[in-house]
Amino acid sequence: MCRWLAYSGSPITLESVLLEPEHSLIDQSLHARMGVETTNGDGLGVGWYGDRNDPGLYRSINPAWNDQNLRELAAHVKSPLFLAHIRASTGTAIQQTNCHPFRHGEWLWMHNGSIRDFGMTKRDLMLAVDPSLYSSIEGSTDSELMFYLALSMGLSDDPVTAVEQMAGLIEKVAECHGITNPLQMTVSITNGETLWVFRYSTERQSRSLFYSTHFRTLRELYPDNERLASVSEETRLVVSEPLVDLPGAWNEVPESSCVIVQAGANEMRPFEPRR
Amino acid sequence: MCRWLAYSGSPITLESVLLEPEHSLIDQSLHARMGVETTNGDGLGVGWYGDRNDPGLYRSINPAWNDQNLRELAAHVKSPLFLAHIRASTGTAIQQTNCHPFRHGEWLWMHNGSIRDFGMTKRDLMLAVDPSLYSSIEGSTDSELMFYLALSMGLSDDPVTAVEQMAGLIEKVAECHGITNPLQMTVSITNGETLWVFRYSTERQSRSLFYSTHFRTLRELYPDNERLASVSEETRLVVSEPLVDLPGAWNEVPESSCVIVQAGANEMRPFEPRR
Amino acid sequence: MCRWLAYSGSPITLESVLLEPEHSLIDQSLHARMGVETTNGDGLGVGWYGDRNDPGLYRSINPAWNDQNLRELAAHVKSPLFLAHIRASTGTAIQQTNCHPFRHGEWLWMHNGSIRDFGMTKRDLMLAVDPSLYSSIEGSTDSELMFYLALSMGLSDDPVTAVEQMAGLIEKVAECHGITNPLQMTVSITNGETLWVFRYSTERQSRSLFYSTHFRTLRELYPDNERLASVSEETRLVVSEPLVDLPGAWNEVPESSCVIVQAGANEMRPFEPRR
Amino acid sequence: MCRWLAYSGSPITLESVLLEPEHSLIDQSLHARMGVETTNGDGLGVGWYGDRNDPGLYRSINPAWNDQNLRELAAHVKSPLFLAHIRASTGTAIQQTNCHPFRHGEWLWMHNGSIRDFGMTKRDLMLAVDPSLYSSIEGSTDSELMFYLALSMGLSDDPVTAVEQMAGLIEKVAECHGITNPLQMTVSITNGETLWVFRYSTERQSRSLFYSTHFRTLRELYPDNERLASVSEETRLVVSEPLVDLPGAWNEVPESSCVIVQAGANEMRPFEPRR
Repeated sequence: MCRWLAYSGSPITLESVLLEPEHSLIDQSLHARMGVETTNGDGLGVGWYGDRNDPGLYRSINPAWNDQNLRELAAHVKSPLFLAHIRASTGTAIQQTNCHPFRHGEWLWMHNGSIRDFGMTKRDLMLAVDPSLYSSIEGSTDSELMFYLALSMGLSDDPVTAVEQMAGLIEKVAECHGITNPLQMTVSITNGETLWVFRYSTERQSRSLFYSTHFRTLRELYPDNERLASVSEETRLVVSEPLVDLPGAWNEVPESSCVIVQAGANEMRPFEPRR
Repeated sequence: MCRWLAYSGSPITLESVLLEPEHSLIDQSLHARMGVETTNGDGLGVGWYGDRNDPGLYRSINPAWNDQNLRELAAHVKSPLFLAHIRASTGTAIQQTNCHPFRHGEWLWMHNGSIRDFGMTKRDLMLAVDPSLYSSIEGSTDSELMFYLALSMGLSDDPVTAVEQMAGLIEKVAECHGITNPLQMTVSITNGETLWVFRYSTERQSRSLFYSTHFRTLRELYPDNERLASVSEETRLVVSEPLVDLPGAWNEVPESSCVIVQAGANEMRPFEPRR
Repeated sequence: MCRWLAYSGSPITLESVLLEPEHSLIDQSLHARMGVETTNGDGLGVGWYGDRNDPGLYRSINPAWNDQNLRELAAHVKSPLFLAHIRASTGTAIQQTNCHPFRHGEWLWMHNGSIRDFGMTKRDLMLAVDPSLYSSIEGSTDSELMFYLALSMGLSDDPVTAVEQMAGLIEKVAECHGITNPLQMTVSITNGETLWVFRYSTERQSRSLFYSTHFRTLRELYPDNERLASVSEETRLVVSEPLVDLPGAWNEVPESSCVIVQAGANEMRPFEPRR
Repeated sequence: MCRWLAYSGSPITLESVLLEPEHSLIDQSLHARMGVETTNGDGLGVGWYGDRNDPGLYRSINPAWNDQNLRELAAHVKSPLFLAHIRASTGTAIQQTNCHPFRHGEWLWMHNGSIRDFGMTKRDLMLAVDPSLYSSIEGSTDSELMFYLALSMGLSDDPVTAVEQMAGLIEKVAECHGITNPLQMTVSITNGETLWVFRYSTERQSRSLFYSTHFRTLRELYPDNERLASVSEETRLVVSEPLVDLPGAWNEVPESSCVIVQAGANEMRPFEPRR
C-alpha cells in the first residue's frame, strides 16, 4: 500500500505540503501512522500543473526521505494543482514506470490499494484495455492497469462512471476466478482543473482518506495560524492521512464514496461499482 | 540494439571474457564496432550457472563501463557457462526488468534486435503467451515477450522448434498489420548445459554474430598464447562481435541459422520460421 | 572531460536549449563532436534560477539521453539563467555529489577539464580550503575542490581574481610535485545575475568554448529564423561546442581568457593564474 | 545508525544468514528492534572472501528489502567469511562510496555509530590520515575516515592497538572542539582470516552487539535444529541484534571491549582508547 496527497488551490511551492507539515508525506515515508505499512520507501512521484496543459512528472525509485532532487523540485516549483505519492510495493518491481502518478495526456491518476491475487486476473483485465491504449502501458502495476481500464471506459468524458465501470469489471473478473474481496482502492484523478477522489473496497473496509475542511472555516477556528492565512478559500487538500494534528481540519471521506473537488462547493456522491 | 556474449567451457572468472579482452563487452559498451549504435549504455546483465540448477542473475541500469558491482562480480565469480548482455534500448524504459538475460526456471534468454513497430503488434503477441505464464512477464520489452512466446511454444522440450514457431508467429502477426521486415534477432538460450544461438531476420540481413573456432585449432595456430593454453578444448564463445583481433579465431554464424553448442561437436542447422 | 552550456536571457523552458537544437546537450551526451570523448554518459546536472535567490538543482547519475526526469523538468521549468552539464568522469565515482553544477549559497559552478595527477595534489589542495568551508564539500572531484578553493579565495567578492588565484595555487602545488601541465579548465560561474566563463590550460591548449554572437546581429543575418525572433537581444549562450550549425552564430572564447556575460556589453579579459 | 553482521565458519550461501533467519538483516532493514531507527534503508553492502586474497564487494544505495541483485548474490555465492551491513545515514549522502563495508587491500571494515558533530572535526581528522592513503578515500562518511585513521595507525600490523589509537585521536580532537561524548561505535574488521569486533562509546552506552554461543553448545541445547547441525563447530556470528530468538544462542559483547574471532577459542579484551 502507499500514501498520497492531492492539492488544489492557491499556487504554492510543493514543499509547503510535501515537506514542511509535521506529518508531511516525507515524514510518512518513514513513519506512516494509518497505513498498512509504516514504511513507504519503494519510490515516489509528483505530478504538477503549470503553464502547459499536460502536467510535469517527477518519479524516482529512491525512498522519499532520501531523494535530494525531490527536495529541490519541491522548493523551486510552484503549482495550483498537484498530486504526490509515496509507494509501498505490494510485489511489483521498484522502477520508475511503476511509480505514481501515471499520466495520459492531460490526466493524472494515483492509487493506494491493490487488486487481490492480481496475477490471476491480470491477463483478463489487460484484454479489457482498449487496443489503441494497450501499448501505452509502461509498467507492471495493478494501479496503472486500473487507470487504463478507466481510460478505456471513458474516463476523459465521465470520470465517475468510468471508475465505477472499472471497479465493476475488476470485481466481475475476480468473481470468475473465485477471488473474494478483490478490490481495495483510494484513487485520485485530475485533468488539471477538477480533482476526483474515490474511496472504496469490495469488503467496505477501505484505506483511510481525508479531505480538508473549508479554509475559511479553518481560519475562523485558528485566526493566528499563518499558514492558513496565506492561502485562498478555494484551497483544498485530500490526503491518505492528516498532515497536521489540527482539530476540525480533516474530514474522513465516507466509505464507498467519491468527492469532486472543483471551483465552488465540493460535491460528494456515493460510489457503486457498475457491471 | 545491443551486444552480447555467451561462454561455455572451463570454469573461469567472468572478467576473463567480460573485461580483459581488447574489445571486451565493457569496451563495446562505449565503442562497439559492428553494432547499429557505437554506445550500448542502457543497462546490462549477466546470468551464470554455479552449484544450483537455476542460474544467478545480475542486472543493472548503469552503463557497463560505470558499473562497479559488475566488476566485483566478474572478478570473484567463476562459472563454466554464462551469458552477458549490454543494452541499447530501442525505446522501452531503462529498468532492471528490461535488462537481459531473462530467466525462467533454469532457462536464460538474451536477444539483440527488435520487433519492428512493436507497439502495433504487442497486444496480439501478448495474447499468444500461455495464460499460465502471462503474469510472470515483468518488463516491457519485445525481447522478453519473445522469450515467453517461445516458452509457450515448448521451448523447454524443443528450443529450436519453439523459436521457429515464435518467429513464424511474429511474422504472421506483423503481416496482418502491414509491417514489412518485422523481425531482427540474434538470440542466445541456455538451460545450463546446452547453448542454442540463432541468427535471423525477416529481411535476411541479420545483426553480426560469431562463434569461436575450436580451441585446439586455436592453440595450434597460436602456441604461445597463454590465455588459449589455460582453457579446455570444449570451450566456446559466441559473440555479437569479436573480442580480440586474432586471425582464424572467429567464424560468422551464417545468415538464417542456428548453432547448438554442446559437449562434442557443435551442430549447425538452417533456421526457418514456422507458421 | 565533459560538455556544458550556460544560458542567460529571456526566460525560456530549459528544453529550448537542452533538447531541441540539432546538436543539443542531450545529443552531445552520445555524440560529442569536439570533446575528448564522444560519449558523456557519467551523469548530468542542471542549475536554474527562479523566484528565489538560490538556484534549483537537478543532478542525476543517469546518462542524459536516458533521463526521463530531466526531460520533464526541461519541458516544465522556465528560467532566465541556467547552467547545464553532462559528465564524462576522469576517474572519480559516478554519484550525485560528483555531478555539476556545484552550488554554494546563491552561487553555481561547473567545469570541464581536470587537474592532472589529482591524487598527488588533492591533500595539499584540500588544506588550502578555508576550514569553515571544508565540511561543505560533499563529493570527491577535482571540479568541486576547485570551486571551494575559489570560494576560499574570495569568489563571492571578486570571481575573476579568485579563479586566477585558484589556478595559480594548483599550478604551484603541482610544480612542487613535479607535475607538468597540471590544469585544464573551462569553467562557468554565476550568482544568478552575472555569468563568468573561463577558458584556460597550463599548456595553452584548452578545451573548446564558444559564446553566441549578439542576438540582434543574428536576427539580421537570419531574418526568417523563428527561434531567434522569440528571444531578447540580451540573450547569450556559452557552450562547449555549438548547438546548431549556423554560420556566424558562434565565436570561440580565446585561449587564456575570461568572458563576463552581463547586462549591456559582454566583457572579455585575458586570464592569468596568480601565485 | 546501522545494523550489521559478520560470519565466520563453514562456507555457506550468504542468504543463509542474510535472508532466511526470522530477524534477518533484510528484515532488520524494515523492522530493526534494537537500533536507534527501525528503518535502515539508506543502502547496503556485503564483502565476502572466496578464492582470492582480496574480498569481493557488493554495495548498493537501494534499501536492502528492495535489492534484487542482493538476493541473487546471496543465493548463489558461498563464503566462509563475510560481512554485511545495512545503512541508516546520519546525514552524509546516499551513494555507493558511502556504503559499508569499506575495503583496503585484503581488509574490510564496517561500522555502526557516528562521530558526533563530525563537521567540526572532519578536517583535523583528515589531516591525521597518512598522506599516502589520503587519496584512496572515496566517500564522505565518518566511518570510512575511521578506517583510514586506523590504517594510518598500523591496522594491518596490530588492529586492536590501531583502533584504540584511532578512538583516542577522535576523542582528543573532539575535546579540542568542546564536543562531549564524541564517539559511538561498533566496528568489525577482518583480513579474511581473523575477525575483530569492537564495542565502545565515549559515554559507555554503546549500541547493541552480540556474538553467537559456541555451536557445539547450541547443538547440545537444540539437538533437533537442522540449521545448527549443518555447520562446523568453528562457526561464529557477530550481530548488531539477534537473528533468531533462540534462548542461550546470543551473548552480549560487553561494554568497552574487543572480541577476536579466530581458529580455536575467541579472545575477549577490554577496549580503551589510547592518546
